[in-house]
Amino acid sequence: QGILERLDAGEIVIGDGGFVFALEKRGYVKAGPWTPEATVEHPEAVRQLHREFLRAGSNVLQTFTFYASEDKLENRGNYVAEKITGQKVNEAACDIAKEVAKEGDALVAGGVSQTPSYLSCKDKAEVKAVFRKQLEVFMRKEVDFLIAEYFEHVEEAVWAVEVLKESGKPVAATMCIGPEGDMHGVPPGQCAVQLVKAGASIVGVNCHFDADICLKTVMLMKEGLEAAKLKAYLMSQPLAFHTPDCGKQGFIDLPEFPFGLEPRIVTRWDVQKYARQAYDLGIRYIGGCCGFEPYHIRAIAEELAPERGFLPEASEKHGSWGDSLSMHTKPWVRARARKEYWENLKPASGRPYCPSLSKPDGWGVTKGARELMQQKEATTEQQLKELFQKQK
Amino acid sequence: QGILERLDAGEIVIGDGGFVFALEKRGYVKAGPWTPEATVEHPEAVRQLHREFLRAGSNVLQTFTFYASEDKLENRGNYVAEKITGQKVNEAACDIAKEVAKEGDALVAGGVSQTPSYLSCKDKAEVKAVFRKQLEVFMRKEVDFLIAEYFEHVEEAVWAVEVLKESGKPVAATMCIGPEGDMHGVPPGQCAVQLVKAGASIVGVNCHFDADICLKTVMLMKEGLEAAKLKAYLMSQPLAFHTPDCGKQGFIDLPEFPFGLEPRIVTRWDVQKYARQAYDLGIRYIGGCCGFEPYHIRAIAEELAPERGFLPEASEKHGSWGDSLSMHTKPWVRARARKEYWENLKPASGRPYCPSLSKPDGWGVTKGARELMQQKEATTEQQLKELFQKQK
Amino acid sequence: QGILERLDAGEIVIGDGGFVFALEKRGYVKAGPWTPEATVEHPEAVRQLHREFLRAGSNVLQTFTFYASEDKLENRGNYVAEKITGQKVNEAACDIAKEVAKEGDALVAGGVSQTPSYLSCKDKAEVKAVFRKQLEVFMRKEVDFLIAEYFEHVEEAVWAVEVLKESGKPVAATMCIGPEGDMHGVPPGQCAVQLVKAGASIVGVNCHFDADICLKTVMLMKEGLEAAKLKAYLMSQPLAFHTPDCGKQGFIDLPEFPFGLEPRIVTRWDVQKYARQAYDLGIRYIGGCCGFEPYHIRAIAEELAPERGFLPEASEKHGSWGDSLSMHTKPWVRARARKEYWENLKPASGRPYCPSLSKPDGWGVTKGARELMQQKEATTEQQLKELFQKQK
Amino acid sequence: QGILERLDAGEIVIGDGGFVFALEKRGYVKAGPWTPEATVEHPEAVRQLHREFLRAGSNVLQTFTFYASEDKLENRGNYVAEKITGQKVNEAACDIAKEVAKEGDALVAGGVSQTPSYLSCKDKAEVKAVFRKQLEVFMRKEVDFLIAEYFEHVEEAVWAVEVLKESGKPVAATMCIGPEGDMHGVPPGQCAVQLVKAGASIVGVNCHFDADICLKTVMLMKEGLEAAKLKAYLMSQPLAFHTPDCGKQGFIDLPEFPFGLEPRIVTRWDVQKYARQAYDLGIRYIGGCCGFEPYHIRAIAEELAPERGFLPEASEKHGSWGDSLSMHTKPWVRARARKEYWENLKPASGRPYCPSLSKPDGWGVTKGARELMQQKEATTEQQLKELFQKQK
Repeated sequence: QGILERLDAGEIVIGDGGFVFALEKRGYVKAGPWTPEATVEHPEAVRQLHREFLRAGSNVLQTFTFYASEDKLENRGNYVAEKITGQKVNEAACDIAKEVAKEGDALVAGGVSQTPSYLSCKDKAEVKAVFRKQLEVFMRKEVDFLIAEYFEHVEEAVWAVEVLKESGKPVAATMCIGPEGDMHGVPPGQCAVQLVKAGASIVGVNCHFDADICLKTVMLMKEGLEAAKLKAYLMSQPLAFHTPDCGKQGFIDLPEFPFGLEPRIVTRWDVQKYARQAYDLGIRYIGGCCGFEPYHIRAIAEELAPERGFLPEASEKHGSWGDSLSMHTKPWVRARARKEYWENLKPASGRPYCPSLSKPDGWGVTKGARELMQQKEATTEQQLKELFQKQK
Repeated sequence: QGILERLDAGEIVIGDGGFVFALEKRGYVKAGPWTPEATVEHPEAVRQLHREFLRAGSNVLQTFTFYASEDKLENRGNYVAEKITGQKVNEAACDIAKEVAKEGDALVAGGVSQTPSYLSCKDKAEVKAVFRKQLEVFMRKEVDFLIAEYFEHVEEAVWAVEVLKESGKPVAATMCIGPEGDMHGVPPGQCAVQLVKAGASIVGVNCHFDADICLKTVMLMKEGLEAAKLKAYLMSQPLAFHTPDCGKQGFIDLPEFPFGLEPRIVTRWDVQKYARQAYDLGIRYIGGCCGFEPYHIRAIAEELAPERGFLPEASEKHGSWGDSLSMHTKPWVRARARKEYWENLKPASGRPYCPSLSKPDGWGVTKGARELMQQKEATTEQQLKELFQKQK
Repeated sequence: QGILERLDAGEIVIGDGGFVFALEKRGYVKAGPWTPEATVEHPEAVRQLHREFLRAGSNVLQTFTFYASEDKLENRGNYVAEKITGQKVNEAACDIAKEVAKEGDALVAGGVSQTPSYLSCKDKAEVKAVFRKQLEVFMRKEVDFLIAEYFEHVEEAVWAVEVLKESGKPVAATMCIGPEGDMHGVPPGQCAVQLVKAGASIVGVNCHFDADICLKTVMLMKEGLEAAKLKAYLMSQPLAFHTPDCGKQGFIDLPEFPFGLEPRIVTRWDVQKYARQAYDLGIRYIGGCCGFEPYHIRAIAEELAPERGFLPEASEKHGSWGDSLSMHTKPWVRARARKEYWENLKPASGRPYCPSLSKPDGWGVTKGARELMQQKEATTEQQLKELFQKQK
Repeated sequence: QGILERLDAGEIVIGDGGFVFALEKRGYVKAGPWTPEATVEHPEAVRQLHREFLRAGSNVLQTFTFYASEDKLENRGNYVAEKITGQKVNEAACDIAKEVAKEGDALVAGGVSQTPSYLSCKDKAEVKAVFRKQLEVFMRKEVDFLIAEYFEHVEEAVWAVEVLKESGKPVAATMCIGPEGDMHGVPPGQCAVQLVKAGASIVGVNCHFDADICLKTVMLMKEGLEAAKLKAYLMSQPLAFHTPDCGKQGFIDLPEFPFGLEPRIVTRWDVQKYARQAYDLGIRYIGGCCGFEPYHIRAIAEELAPERGFLPEASEKHGSWGDSLSMHTKPWVRARARKEYWENLKPASGRPYCPSLSKPDGWGVTKGARELMQQKEATTEQQLKELFQKQK
């Protein structure tokens, strides 16, 4: 059954977690570029991660094609062997995902994300050509449906959706925005409306913000759709980091990004709370983004097991709500084997010399520079360097 | 070259990270029992983790035989298929480690850890018989050397070392104790002396405490050895969690154990600091325990690259000190591409409603119960239940 | 010179601090009722506090008549001797303030605040009669001007201003509201407009919120006045407690109110920052409310000394920006004798087992009860008790 | 009845709080020098503070003669009018304390503290001469007993006790040390023994550390006395600041000293806990030092009211354990009117951008400089400046 048939039937669809962060920690992705050449270089590592998410309960395996547009790979991938072309990366990603999907009951979704071409002001035709190249691979490899994700500008997201819709397959579209809207100031409600009008059947947000903020943003999308009398399924794939202190552009601007985010990592219990809230708000495609490890996805599946009627395979190795501690030799550890305990725990950081919140960066630079940064004009390296020098 | 030849030649030996915690998050190990039947059930998952540590710079691959003594597997493994015997678990663990070790320049170490037999007051002969069963597998599979690790009582650790020495292979021994010493009150210095006298060539600590506390404890061991005019190499494999607030029995008693430890996870920069300190203190076998992921091990290898003269394979995907951010489009993110930035960062938890320290548990129970707990007498489930009921 | 002459001449007027909190700590006011019978019982204590604020730089001494309306004193003052009538409390308050004002260059302002009569739905005439009784004393004692402060409902504040204007004296009016507006939902801008139309020459906010939130609220008032093309001087008298986590009704709902607020107390440097911001925003009547001690008021006077051209008397005992540490015997303490040090200090709480933020109370009770609470209907003790019982 | 008669009769003696910190906030004492010329300049302010402590339950009023030795006043008091001699300061201090003591049932204690003469290596005779000058005033003014307090070196404290004992009056002696002992390394137990042998009837600690650390130190004194078979009453007057993170020299070295200590201020409930613990440990002279305001002293008196059989006068304005909130209009505030609530509250700091602990200063300077600092040799300003310059 396809993604829309499942959603039409009232099923909850569980997404997968964050590949670039998980594989960075495993040694296969470089932070900064965040490109997915590992599909060619180390397919076994990508395969294993897919498998773990599948076991954890994912109903969708997204091809590991984040930032795999050719313009991006060229731009940033100079530490990667020349023979690893964009086409090879995308093909390998499809092959791996399809291979693992067969081990369970999962769909494979081909994914595209924002491009350097758009940021450097290439025109609509050029940007669309970039997406079309990836789509050709997805079609040849017969993925089940398509996802346009991690877009900061609704304009580019709409172009992506339009290209993906040429395939005739269902399209989901998520933007990495918060309640303040996209980088040009388009509010979430309007973004959702434009995406649905462009052909997306599922809309929502992914990345950049924690679950609280993502859910708020999806609710604004929902309101926008209702006001416009449009219908679409809702989707959320937040960070697995607490980011109550981030600004408009999310966790990128937090001083801890990307190598000091550990104290912000959410627990499995945080994820269960998120899954319940997402469900209660009417969201039916519930997954995660950067920071989501297999056990976080399992937490979604366990929280929603009553609604879904079954547990994921990996729950064989996990007692619900700490139940596996009930045989511990210490009575005070056994006393943790219950829901109330974990629901109410306020976990300590073990870092008394650290604060609990940070001020986002980006405010140390001049307003002029910041504004340029946030627009397309400022993307040449030279301009950026000059601006940054100037303000020091 | 064997482990002792390497150490004799002045090499730094980098250990691997924490299997039970990493595989719990990946869905293959059950918290509570923490047993390694995954070697039989899901060898590909164990293999992949070994490979990641190898790429990250580990010079030693420990067989995934933690808590794999037959008495432990019988006791706790009733959710595991009957045909998965202790022998099969140990054999598979050896096969996988040896297979991956060939992909690089790593030694394979067979590992034993504390047993329920000892805790339930079996006599020396019986306990030794348990270790001997695992040793037979290690000998047959021709591991390079042996590790006795995670012992809370030096008496049992000595028995383990004595058995392992029957093999003629080099033996390393680490206890999961802090500066206060073992559960019977034997101070670290004396523990080290007893272990070396029993035949260990390498001694130190693993698990239960963070790097700061582990290093303090190893230093006490060093002093003890010096006072006794004994020689041995020093080894440390701490937690990857900050635990400045734990008591004598370490992180088990922290309220966050084991499902709420996320905010305590150390950063790669914390690990670099640890590696440097360990090296400066004269420790030459430097690794990690629970919580250590591949990128943490890579941080040891990167910190000590000047001394060792080379970087690990996985550093191909990691710019030293955040260097890979130097091409980021935002100037304030590029400004993070330097050592001083990450060294001085005080990372926020993103959890303003949580404290920074916790009081260890175990003080809510009566003193009598606690003392029983800490001794061998209290291990029958029935006794424990009664004690716990009484004090509620 | 009167208050308006001073403001018209471009002077900065410095208010005084919080009497009920300071005198509670000194042993003369009861938390809960917060009534000012100390003016009769212990005039020397009230006099001394006035004197300290005067020395610290206050240009206005408010009569200690907070909650000194007769209906309030009757209601709550049953632990107070019967002979201490409302009239006596108000008279004594005026006498003390006038006596101390002569020791310097300060004006005396008679103050009224919200009444139980309004909360229990007495009509306009009855409520006005209550204010008029206090006004009669103020007129007889010849105070310099009048302040209506600590109003949660603009309707009652307008009635108070109307009564006070009967005197012909200048009237200042401050509400204890945040950016969300008054308890009936009237936004700050509209509150300001109504108060100015009723006759207030100075408008702003006092109490309930920290400086950041108060300044935001005053700015909303300013915008409202500008939109209505009305003119008035602006005034702010915030808490000396950090309350970034409070809800619509301010610090009353924080779990720490009123006996655990210590960790939230602002430093003198926080106050200097507040004074500078208030000044830059165009506020010219700058003081404090609950928590403001004499040294906090001195900090306003020191920050604005360049603009005002002089320091307050109490600065004789205070080196600017820690200057008095420059002779300390320890070099690292001497190193603190500079502005950059104190401006950038992030002071630790010394409380690692405590969080940094709290959830406001009031959410544990049912929504129905809360709404009743926030309206006038729920003020009979009986009703409250029933509601609270019901929801437990 | 004298101090010893009261203690002999089993009474609990409640001390007073911190004058220099309280009067600094009120505008009468300069931080840095911390000298008490206010007794002459502003007697009404000193009188009022004495009165507040008396009302709060203090059984002893200490003359405000801290740092009032002539050598100290000469050294630091150059911003003070010349005619205010040491003799006048001491005389005025006695007059004020005696005047207020008559308003209740309190004893007056003349107090001396450490001297610049000792720190600059003057000999025993010279140092004793300094103390004797103050003692002459105390004798003439007929104080009830004598206190030698705030000594960092037991040698000087012993000299002080010897001088004070010449009077024939009872002598109490407290040092500002922690468990590590005095600045020359004499442990607390030995300090206590020397002080008792010199003639002190009451010994203990004051200032520099919070209640937890002070109580630990007094217990070490108690053990020392018991080992030496000496008898003395025990006394504690800790800071009203949480200082779990301070080093050997206490809160002076904390980066927040003295102008950023607000978040560390203890609540009344913290004080009740301290009073109970002190009592349970056998301490019978229980007071406070820097940071203790009248309401903190009242908290001691309220906690020990069951043992003493009465409440202090100021409790007329304080319901026990928040009782005065029981009439509040909001049910959730009324719910705070109980012991369990305040005992268990973990008060938030409202400062999410601040840490909970600090590293003490003094470690940024070279070890050589630090050691000099801590000894007597380094007190000339010139030497200090050179040392500090050198290490920058």
